Order: sequence, then structure tokens, then C-alpha cells
Amino acid sequence: MTLRNRPARSVELRAPGATPIPGLAVDLYELTMAASYFENRKSERAAFSLFVRTYPPGRRYFVSAGLEDALGYLSRLSFGRDEVAYLRSLRLFTGEFLSYLRGFRFTGDVFAIPEGRLFFADEPILEVEGPLIEAQIVETCLINIINLQAMIATKASRCLQAAGPRRLVDFSLRRTQGLEAGLKAARASFIGGFAGTSNVLAGRVYGLPVFGTMAHSFVTSFGREVDAFRAYARSFPESAVLLIDTYDTLAGAAKAAVVGKEMSARGERLRGVRLDSGDIAGLSRKVRQILVQAGLGEASIVASGGLDDRKIAEIISRGGDIDSFGVGTRMGVSADAPYLDMAYKMVELGGRPVLKLSPGKASLGGRKQVFRLSLPSGALKRDVIGLRDEALPGEPLLRKVMGRGEILGRLPALPEIQKIFLGEFAKLDEKYRQLDGGPAHFPVSHSARLRRLQARVIQKIRSRELGES
Amino acid sequence: MTLRNRPARSVELRAPGATPIPGLAVDLYELTMAASYFENRKSERAAFSLFVRTYPPGRRYFVSAGLEDALGYLSRLSFGRDEVAYLRSLRLFTGEFLSYLRGFRFTGDVFAIPEGRLFFADEPILEVEGPLIEAQIVETCLINIINLQAMIATKASRCLQAAGPRRLVDFSLRRTQGLEAGLKAARASFIGGFAGTSNVLAGRVYGLPVFGTMAHSFVTSFGREVDAFRAYARSFPESAVLLIDTYDTLAGAAKAAVVGKEMSARGERLRGVRLDSGDIAGLSRKVRQILVQAGLGEASIVASGGLDDRKIAEIISRGGDIDSFGVGTRMGVSADAPYLDMAYKMVELGGRPVLKLSPGKASLGGRKQVFRLSLPSGALKRDVIGLRDEALPGEPLLRKVMGRGEILGRLPALPEIQKIFLGEFAKLDEKYRQLDGGPAHFPVSHSARLRRLQARVIQKIRSRELGES
Repeated sequence: MTLRNRPARSVELRAPGATPIPGLAVDLYELTMAASYFENRKSERAAFSLFVRTYPPGRRYFVSAGLEDALGYLSRLSFGRDEVAYLRSLRLFTGEFLSYLRGFRFTGDVFAIPEGRLFFADEPILEVEGPLIEAQIVETCLINIINLQAMIATKASRCLQAAGPRRLVDFSLRRTQGLEAGLKAARASFIGGFAGTSNVLAGRVYGLPVFGTMAHSFVTSFGREVDAFRAYARSFPESAVLLIDTYDTLAGAAKAAVVGKEMSARGERLRGVRLDSGDIAGLSRKVRQILVQAGLGEASIVASGGLDDRKIAEIISRGGDIDSFGVGTRMGVSADAPYLDMAYKMVELGGRPVLKLSPGKASLGGRKQVFRLSLPSGALKRDVIGLRDEALPGEPLLRKVMGRGEILGRLPALPEIQKIFLGEFAKLDEKYRQLDGGPAHFPVSHSARLRRLQARVIQKIRSRELGES
Repeated sequence: MTLRNRPARSVELRAPGATPIPGLAVDLYELTMAASYFENRKSERAAFSLFVRTYPPGRRYFVSAGLEDALGYLSRLSFGRDEVAYLRSLRLFTGEFLSYLRGFRFTGDVFAIPEGRLFFADEPILEVEGPLIEAQIVETCLINIINLQAMIATKASRCLQAAGPRRLVDFSLRRTQGLEAGLKAARASFIGGFAGTSNVLAGRVYGLPVFGTMAHSFVTSFGREVDAFRAYARSFPESAVLLIDTYDTLAGAAKAAVVGKEMSARGERLRGVRLDSGDIAGLSRKVRQILVQAGLGEASIVASGGLDDRKIAEIISRGGDIDSFGVGTRMGVSADAPYLDMAYKMVELGGRPVLKLSPGKASLGGRKQVFRLSLPSGALKRDVIGLRDEALPGEPLLRKVMGRGEILGRLPALPEIQKIFLGEFAKLDEKYRQLDGGPAHFPVSHSARLRRLQARVIQKIRSRELGES
């Protein structure tokens, strides 16, 4: 396995929005609603809240990720000449509205929970305040961006929970849902505790350590397996990790040992071997014996092949002797929970709280804050969702990160974000970190003022809309 | 719901690779293997085969999709100056190899099953032939591109199977795994039988019909629900679809009926209403009554909210009276099967067949062709996987689509691809189209020559690598 630790990113690459998102990347209804607001001169300020309604199976927490991309999107959002021409061709919109779109910029404020922090169901991760049209139009992309990265960072953190001190590397690029998803999976899994990625582009864009071994095709391209190992060792005398399961894992390990001894004799070093199939736990112990008997006790054993949090836990519980896990598809698409039930709901308009009552999808009105309380030991105790202007005990998690469309302050580098995550994850009680979820939810309550406000607004809607008094 | 049927795409937008993919979008091991091949002067021609190993639960067929993007990638692949500079900074590669990469172009041939055709487990969807390094380096992206679109087209076809003649619209953009995935989900779901998408960018890039209604926030932004409906109707007198479940679906339907009658009186037309929560089947029947009693029998009822193939089937089986389904997240991420077990394996090198024996991951050696046999009725009978140069009965599915790195012939437009899909899907026996999969696999056999070749190669590998004779 090849490890390169890149220095912190140069600013132009790490800057948010390095990949500009077209303004047309929205659901059509954002634009039809905007057109109707525009025509009806609804220019009040609105606040929207982004949150996850429910936990997917086995989840009891989420990891905040994606904010840098979300802010990059907001700070660069515009509708180009060609985009407006396309919209005109739909014959849905007036010339006045299209002119408005042509000059569109997001000028609102954003409050958010920083990347790397834990959050829980119903808690606002991000609140957007601004003119109604602006705050509405960004719905589609904000959900898309935060949903993907928070989901992957959460899934990665479960792999970390399973792997303990063993190294985790993102191998997911080939089966992520697109190449952009692969890039974001590398970023988000690093936040969730991974050491790096096989994705070279992510290595470049995010300054992540990149890792790579060889494929079975490399082995089959040589007449004999041992010839493939020798050729690769010649090319990478310091960083070769040999894939040993193309024909038979133990026979492959014996050949890797031969080549490893040849390397040692030349003053080189076999970095490791990789197992990609079969009974990984049992094979890894036998492979370790073969390596140790050849005097290659320093060589790493890397496991890969259909791994995820549960499989890693199983391999370890069955005594697998693994130094490093290459975790691919199931992490990179969060296979057991491939989306979060994330919503973006209007919570205030013109200074008045609003909410919806749809069955199973009710929302919390009002601009909010999350207050996190800890025990004297530092362990997380509970969260209280209150109103934004409340002064309650605990650490307020949402910070103002954008003012009038401008990003405020410095965005943390990825290693800082990972450190924030690792620090807080260690403070989360083990019972909420279990892979099967377990029965207990982390305690999240609503402040008295928030509860009173909900009751008042619901009462008002019922009497107005449903004829109840 | 707003419908715009766009004319067929202008060439520059539909051209494959409209979004160039960076050369660095690869797993590092593709490059380390390439470097070792380069150093070891392994310049033989190789053939690789792309296929799906196994069916995910409930699947008995797949829909080919993604070829246009795959060919666009191959025809444009290169490593820019900055990319090579990044690779140099990793201190893994020789100057000679980096110079080679700087001049890299894909010069190979590609054979593929056209988009929209059905394929089955183990069948090669695509075979790449070219110099070893070239054919190897494209592995990561080819799997990524075809995996995503084939998976989504297949999932969309299941929604079609459930919905029958009712209209399907892609609503998935907000929770697809990234915005690129949203774009590809719109394309692939159209291939799988959808009528269009809410994704405006996909409308523009692919010339797809775009659809949109309103969100709950539109309703809550007005003092009263009926005021929201009136404002939207004024803005869209011909295309308004009103969302009626913000507070109470039946009360909302009654208000929509009031507004619909006002529209009729003005010579306008209420296009429809949308239900997004609750007991969709039961509510839809009551909503239809309310609309019909108001003389709005022409108005469509659109259902959305957590839908997928199974939920659509359930709503219909419970007597839901729905004209159109907006299908979002679960289709857009193929939630019950968020990846395919897709592999890209070397099958020939320097004219000799190769394969791997890893447990559960064995591959078929040799360059192949798939022959599809039909019954006199036109119904699909069975497939035979043979060697490429065999002349067997049935339609050969893989066609040469790229020669020496150049795309051969015209790429079909999306409506043509959808037509190809719909035509063949109708010929697939109902038992393979069931949503629960059922016990029967579509019959796929291997030709006698392919079987003999496998036996010979396996015997040879065993005696060479494992000391068996």
C-alpha cells in the first residue's frame, strides 16, 4: 500500500465551490414557486431549517459534513445567459422574472453546525435566512450536498467504531453513484475517521493521503503469479502491497514471502499483502504465520472485498489479524442507509413562525438553536433544541457562517474537521455508537419556549385552515 | 404539473463527455500498475470484460445504460499538465512514465450492448481491447459510469412495471448521491420508461420534459392555503398543480376545487393536485370525488412522497386513483440495491485467454459475444454467451462502438433508447419482471467452445500456480 501524506491544500483547490454548480441544478418547482412569489410581490424575509426527520435503521447519531460545499454553492450561485435562455424556451416564465434571475445572487445569512460535529434527528443542521425567493431556491442543492456528505461521514464513523485502531482507507470510487459522489465520499469518509483514499482526484483536490495496491488483472497479465510480484516489487521497492488471492491465498502468501525475502536481501522492504476474498479472518492468521516465518513480521495485512462496518466487526470478532481495511462500495454508497430522511422546511416568514402539519412530516416552527450539555467528565449528556434568541445552558452548536451571502471567517481544513469529529465521537456514550443502534436514543428535548410556540402556531393553523376552534 | 416537451437535443449538448472527466479520477492502483507495466515493457494487447456477477435481491434482469458517457470518457481521456505535476509530487513515478501519461490517449476498441437493451448476470455488457495499460487504466471510470446508470435504469423499469400506463416522473434530485448522480438518474430513469424529470439541468442537458408543482413552503408562505392556491393559479393559468396536503388533504382538495372552478370560469384550467403524505390510496379516491363533483374531472391526481416500485404497486392494488407518480429518493439512489456487483476483468492478453479463480469471484476468459434467441412470438427465449468469433444462432448483442479510440457511428438519441428499452421489456416474460424477483432466472448458457476454453485455462492455471497436475 502506497502512502503519501500531502501537505495542507493550496487555497485555490480547497476553496469551496471549486466545482461551480449550475443554477439550473434545481427542481423545477423551486423556479415556478419563485416566479409566483415574484409576481405576487412576496418579498418578506424567510427562514428555512435543514434537518433529518428520523434515524435510518441502526443509526443513533449523524456526523455533520458538507458545509464547505454548501457555502461554496451559496456564494457562487447564479443563472448564466444560456441558462436563462433555456428557461425562456420553456414558456413558463415572464420576461421580468427571467431578468430577475439573470441578476440573481444569494444575499442571505446562514447558521450551521460545523463539520465534524455530531447531530441528532430533528436538530437543525443549517438554517438559512434571506428574501423568500432566495431562501427557497437553494433547497434542492442544500439538501443534496449535506445529505450525501453527512450520510457518508456517518457511515465511515461506523467503520471506525468497528475497526478501532486499525487503518481505514476509502476504496469506493468504482461503485459510488457517480464520480462526484466518489470525490465527496473520499472527503466525507476522511472526516469520519478514514486515513485516506484510493481516489487520486480526491488526493489532489482535498490533499488526502492516497493509497493503492494492484488488481487481479496485474497478476493474470504475467505468466506466473510470482513474476507479477517480482515486477511490481521492482517498480515500487518501498511501497509494494501484493495482492495474493488471485489463484489461492495461501499459495499467494508463500510467493509474496519469497519476493519479500528477495526484497529484504536487496535492502528493500515489502510493505504488505492484500486479501480480497474468501474467509478473511481465518486466512489472515495463516498469512501472518507465513510472513512471520519468512522474517517479514513488519509487513502489513490489508483486507478488502465487500467490507463495511458489520463485516469489519465480524472479521475482528473472529480473530482476523488485519492491519488495514480497504472499504469500498458499501461505505461509499452507505448501502444499508443510502439516503437520509433530510428535509428543508420554512420555519419563519416576515418574523412570524410557520410550520407544516402533514402526517409524519410535521416540522418545528421558529428560528432555532441547539444547546449541547456535557457531563463533568466531558461525555455528552443531552441536547436541547430552543429558539435562536434563547440563552440556555450548554454549548450553542449553530454558528453564523454566512452573512449577506459572504462566507464569514476561515473554513477549517479537513484534518481539523477530522480532529473535531474524533474528539466529539469519543465523548458519545458507547450505547449510541453500537452498530445495531440499540434501543436508546440520545436525549434531545425542546425548550419550554419552543414547545409553547409550537402549540400556539398549531392552534392558529387548525382554527384558520380546518375550521377547528 | 408543468410539462414541456423539448425538441431533440442540439448536438453539442448531447455529445458524450459534455462534462470532461479528469484523468486523475482513478484508483491509484490503476496508475501504479500502469507504471509497472510501462517499466516492464508489457505492451501486449489486452481485452477486458465488464459484467455484473450476481443479481441484487428481487432483480432478474438489468437495463443497459451509460454507454454514451462511457464512450465520451474514453474518447476524451487525458492527463493535463497540472495532473501530471500532482502525480510527480507523490514521488511514486518515474519521469519516463509521467511523460508517457502526459501524451496518453485511449486508442483501443470497444464492443458493447447498446443502451436500452436488457442484459443478465455474467453477460459482458462491454469489452475493451487495446494496449494493456490503456485497457487497465479505464477500469475505475467505466465501472463507475455504467454501474450508476444501469442500476437506475433497472430500478426505473421496476417502477414502470408497477405503474403500468400511469405517468412516472423523476423527483429524485434532492437526495441523489450528488448532483452528477441526479443528472444521470434523470437520464437513466428516462431510458427505463419515465416521462421526464423535475431536474431542470437534466431538462436542459438531455432535452427531457421537465415537471414541477409547488412545495409545502409555498403554501405556508401565504396567510391561508386558498390564497396560496389562487396566487399560483394566477402565475400558471395552464399548468398549475396544487399541493393539497400541507394541513389536511381533504380540506386542501376542497380549496383546490374552489380555485379550479374559479379558473374554469376564467377560461383557464387546473392541471391537477398533488398528494404527498398519508394514505395515498384512500385519499386519492376521496380527492377524485371532490374534483369530479366540482366539474374538474380532467384534473390529474399526482402522488409523491417516499414512492418506489413496491409502494406504487401497493397504492394501485389498494385502489389508488392516481394519474401520475412523482418518484424520488428511493428510485434515484436505487435504495433497495444501491450498487450492482459489477466487475471489469481481464479476459485475454496477447491473444491468450486469462481469468481469475478467487472464490466467489471467478471470471470467464476469452473475448465474448452474447447471442439472444427469441420465440416465434418475439418473446425472449434465452441467451447464449459464446466466444466473440463464434457464429451461433440468435442476435449478437455486442456491437463494435469504438475503433482505435474513435466513436463509430451515430449515438442514438434518448427517445430512441427509451423506445428500444420499451420494445424489449415487453418481450421479457412477466415472471422475470416481477418485483419480488421470483424463483426463475432467465436462461443464460455458455457455448460449448466457451466451456471448453474455461476448462482448459483453469487446468493450466492450476498446474502452473498450485502445483496440481
